[in-house]
Amino acid sequence: MSGAQGPGGGMKRRDLFGIAAGLAGGLVLREAVAGDAPVVPSVPPDATKVLGQGITPLGLRSPFEEAQIAPVGAVTGTAFAPIERFVGLTTPTDLQFQRHHGGIPAIDPSRYTLLLHGMVDTPLTFSLADLKRFPSVTRTHFLECSGNGRKAFREPKGELTPQYIDGQFNNVEWTGVPLARVLAEAGVKPDGTWLLAEGGDASVLLRSVPMKKALEDCLLVYASNGEALRPAHGYPVRLLVPGWEANMSIKWLRRLEVTDAPSMSKDETAKYTDPLPGDRARQFSFEQDAKSIILSPSHPMTLTPGFWPVTGLAWSGRGRIQRVDVSTDGGKTWSEAELQGPNTGRCAVRFVHPWTWDGAATQLMSRAIDETGYVQPTYREFLAVRGAGTDYHFNPIRTWSVGEDGRVAFVADPEAA
Amino acid sequence: MSGAQGPGGGMKRRDLFGIAAGLAGGLVLREAVAGDAPVVPSVPPDATKVLGQGITPLGLRSPFEEAQIAPVGAVTGTAFAPIERFVGLTTPTDLQFQRHHGGIPAIDPSRYTLLLHGMVDTPLTFSLADLKRFPSVTRTHFLECSGNGRKAFREPKGELTPQYIDGQFNNVEWTGVPLARVLAEAGVKPDGTWLLAEGGDASVLLRSVPMKKALEDCLLVYASNGEALRPAHGYPVRLLVPGWEANMSIKWLRRLEVTDAPSMSKDETAKYTDPLPGDRARQFSFEQDAKSIILSPSHPMTLTPGFWPVTGLAWSGRGRIQRVDVSTDGGKTWSEAELQGPNTGRCAVRFVHPWTWDGAATQLMSRAIDETGYVQPTYREFLAVRGAGTDYHFNPIRTWSVGEDGRVAFVADPEAA
Repeated sequence: MSGAQGPGGGMKRRDLFGIAAGLAGGLVLREAVAGDAPVVPSVPPDATKVLGQGITPLGLRSPFEEAQIAPVGAVTGTAFAPIERFVGLTTPTDLQFQRHHGGIPAIDPSRYTLLLHGMVDTPLTFSLADLKRFPSVTRTHFLECSGNGRKAFREPKGELTPQYIDGQFNNVEWTGVPLARVLAEAGVKPDGTWLLAEGGDASVLLRSVPMKKALEDCLLVYASNGEALRPAHGYPVRLLVPGWEANMSIKWLRRLEVTDAPSMSKDETAKYTDPLPGDRARQFSFEQDAKSIILSPSHPMTLTPGFWPVTGLAWSGRGRIQRVDVSTDGGKTWSEAELQGPNTGRCAVRFVHPWTWDGAATQLMSRAIDETGYVQPTYREFLAVRGAGTDYHFNPIRTWSVGEDGRVAFVADPEAA
Repeated sequence: MSGAQGPGGGMKRRDLFGIAAGLAGGLVLREAVAGDAPVVPSVPPDATKVLGQGITPLGLRSPFEEAQIAPVGAVTGTAFAPIERFVGLTTPTDLQFQRHHGGIPAIDPSRYTLLLHGMVDTPLTFSLADLKRFPSVTRTHFLECSGNGRKAFREPKGELTPQYIDGQFNNVEWTGVPLARVLAEAGVKPDGTWLLAEGGDASVLLRSVPMKKALEDCLLVYASNGEALRPAHGYPVRLLVPGWEANMSIKWLRRLEVTDAPSMSKDETAKYTDPLPGDRARQFSFEQDAKSIILSPSHPMTLTPGFWPVTGLAWSGRGRIQRVDVSTDGGKTWSEAELQGPNTGRCAVRFVHPWTWDGAATQLMSRAIDETGYVQPTYREFLAVRGAGTDYHFNPIRTWSVGEDGRVAFVADPEAA
């Protein structure tokens, strides 16, 4: 919305338009720019006077739109999604955040198998085609890394963008088979109260899921946003554990073992156990607590006095978002924002709140409340309960300061000033 | 689900796996294959034994998944979406169908303007940033070309796939500004009962929209499926006229003129008027009638006796789908299918019906009924009302025959046999 946010912000685009205006023909030209500067497209002065481009096998993005996940290259690492670029509710398929422990495995779907064994009447192996023969269900759910928000907690600074504050988050339409349906084929024995799920990547990620949750709403997912899962997202099949920390939604799922207790795997003891004050720890922290973040205005926008809709996303692992409050005066007063979206539970909603900036320095905050009555805590409330050593599940209220110069900056602890 | 449907169907993939099994390392190799054969990836024999790939800026598709719209290359033409490959409800962004009259224009979003004039109190011009400053709304709606189904009507043959029968269809999450909100800024004069919308492409597409519809639910859309519209879909701004023939949802929208009558533009007189029997014509045919199509089983699948879920999509331009009936005996008996999806109105729902094929030749059909009570007609009913010369809005019941050999083929007129 501001010039600083536009794609190719650093380019002298008017100069290039000057060049473009002198060109005949309707093709989109890509002009090489010296050094490391981005390539910027030229466009005809009047698109109605020249024949447009022909149809390509896939509808490509505009060269003026260049969002990507970041950082890239890591085999065992994380890539944050540019959530401030998202519009509406759906996370664009190729911009879903990524977190891998052993890289992205190459899997041939025709050789894929899922083993279901342990405390069952009949151990079974399913091919991908077998799983697709079950009647499918389609539901929209968010996924959030349990480490989402760590950077904002450990290394807070004003220059953090939403991407690096809470970008380990997506909201996607999933299609697959209810896990309950597949378990029923094998027949779970009465003592089978837990389920161990194993990934087919080089890290062989292992997590234990209570059978109650498995039967309630878990899915074996083979598609997102209308198409086959992409390799980075678990192709060809992942587990989906709606509302719970994303590492439980095991990607490249290859094995399910019914057990009578949590398996205390490497991935749920060495990792994904929450340190608490007083040398205590919390295990397991399955559900992602209610959370929200304002995505616009946000850093690095610079505002001019006038009307700015305050908008962002909110979600809860416990069910529907009931309400999102927005404060435009640093938490002194709060107003209920308008919520958009089907809000079908354990999915994102978008909140929108009209606001006119008068030019005075202030702070913007949002606060999510879910259908269980859970209220997103302030930073100080969060810190008191969880301690400075906490390492997962960061959901304190997010604050943006707006300076008198219009600059927007992240504030971790608004009570510190 | 059958071997014939798999990607790279014609390849000797087992041979290539043999090669792959002999390779060390975890990289996905792309092996060139002689002639025009597709490139097929190799994968390691056990992905858990090798480090996976690193993170790329965008989450890429598996090389085993190669859907595309078709045909490609046309500047003034149409590209059908592979709807039988779609899973769930959402159309993948880059696989939306395309229909252009002057190609895809190259537009710089920073130079984009929308003129609103005619019978208004104050003519206004909006930049893209101006439009984004309005509070946004997000809704899921289908778009269907008024010519969708023409090939199945004019050149029916058993080998037609869903892509070529009804692939000028998509179902997408749209985000933008209510048109009513923007019109209110200009102030529509009392006699302003129509609106002329003009596209910024080389064809300068022009359609008249009744003011009643414009105020009811039309949007000025700048995003789909969570990201900026792509150039082929109207970047940076298109009109969305929910439930009405897709050519009214003017892409690359550059001008809105408030008028007191339909403008009888070239695009709504020379085109998009429906011929009827007896040298009559129907004008205007705004709403897309209720329709459904079974996407699986469909041609070119070959079935083996056993369980096959019958699944497909249904939609209506008049509101919610109330019911979809499925017949697995050529229309003698019908069963109500399970509907999936929020079904929020003028959007697609997925229907699923369990079916066990006994090996005997039969016919599969689906029949959509919307909330107004409208029932999708049989082919003979459709033909009687619309005549053989009809050229738009083809929504007769779609039929698939299943032969004793398991082969699935399209049948235009099941009463003809």
